[in-house]
Amino acid sequence: MKLLPEAITTAIEALSDLPGIGTRSAERLVFSLLKNEIGLEKKIGNALHDLKKNITECSVCCHFAEENRCPICKNEDRSDLEICVVESPMDVLAMERTHAFRGKYHVLHGVISPLDRVKAENIRIEQLLNRVLQTPPTEIIIALPGTTEAEATSLFLADQLKQIGCTAKVSRLARGIPSGGDLDYLDAGTLSRAMLDRREVS
Amino acid sequence: MKLLPEAITTAIEALSDLPGIGTRSAERLVFSLLKNEIGLEKKIGNALHDLKKNITECSVCCHFAEENRCPICKNEDRSDLEICVVESPMDVLAMERTHAFRGKYHVLHGVISPLDRVKAENIRIEQLLNRVLQTPPTEIIIALPGTTEAEATSLFLADQLKQIGCTAKVSRLARGIPSGGDLDYLDAGTLSRAMLDRREVS
Repeated sequence: MKLLPEAITTAIEALSDLPGIGTRSAERLVFSLLKNEIGLEKKIGNALHDLKKNITECSVCCHFAEENRCPICKNEDRSDLEICVVESPMDVLAMERTHAFRGKYHVLHGVISPLDRVKAENIRIEQLLNRVLQTPPTEIIIALPGTTEAEATSLFLADQLKQIGCTAKVSRLARGIPSGGDLDYLDAGTLSRAMLDRREVS
Repeated sequence: MKLLPEAITTAIEALSDLPGIGTRSAERLVFSLLKNEIGLEKKIGNALHDLKKNITECSVCCHFAEENRCPICKNEDRSDLEICVVESPMDVLAMERTHAFRGKYHVLHGVISPLDRVKAENIRIEQLLNRVLQTPPTEIIIALPGTTEAEATSLFLADQLKQIGCTAKVSRLARGIPSGGDLDYLDAGTLSRAMLDRREVS
């Protein structure tokens, strides 16, 4: 027997298709929207419906943008000589929160992953190579995650950059213990990497 | 500086208004929708936009319904003589999952809570009293949560039912240790209640 009206079931099913949201969480969200009196469900509904309407990719860095070039690429205060290569637009936000980088970005929209059928041509590697040829940077910082796939992508990228005759320094993010991290909670991989990459105390 | 297009920021802000979803989770959800290629964002957008369109409250039990009466109230296989009083429509789903109750429900849509400015007239108590007067049941099971507010609401309800001359048995859900529960993990309140309400082993 149908215990709930069609509209509620549809909304629960749609929300539970989101990553990390199961049926129970979706139920909770929908019931809280039904209780909500300021029309939040309409606000979210409209925002999601029009989400992709005006979104395109920046022609330079492939970050999400509303115009041909994103605000970061248009910003003349930022150096063109340093390119930080990241996996996703979320990583741009994460990096910007640190205020540690004043160059420009390149968003790959993924990493090479044969198991997920993501090949080099499915991510924005060609765009990066073209960009590097057009306006050669002095340093390319590969800021990809610590996974095996990302590691392989970094090596592939470095190799491709060498093949097109790029003379920029190619670096990657440091690996080591996180700030405030306790040694006994760390996995062996991180710890051995931190040992290998140890720095002189100066 | 605006790091993201307007449409993305709007969607993130709207989603983070949902209970239990912070800015970071909202970011993750929106970026996964942007990556999604089967139009899930439109599906969710439409479902939420039209969520309340055809939803009304059942004129008998106040559960969400598409028509004047909900499927449970229309079901003639279920007894009118037992009414299970619950706080919210979600509790109807929870109760139905147990298959332990074959009577009908009454959804209060809240409990009396002076701190949240919820008074007796803000929840569906009057509807329950009218319903009981019209078709007197033999038992009213108050299935409210274990909070102080719910406890006070139960007492208030029992008192009101007595005042209108209702002769039905008024019961509440048993309190005690949960199935599979370990005694040493239980709080003192639950355990002392389980001691007080102990049953003879037969």
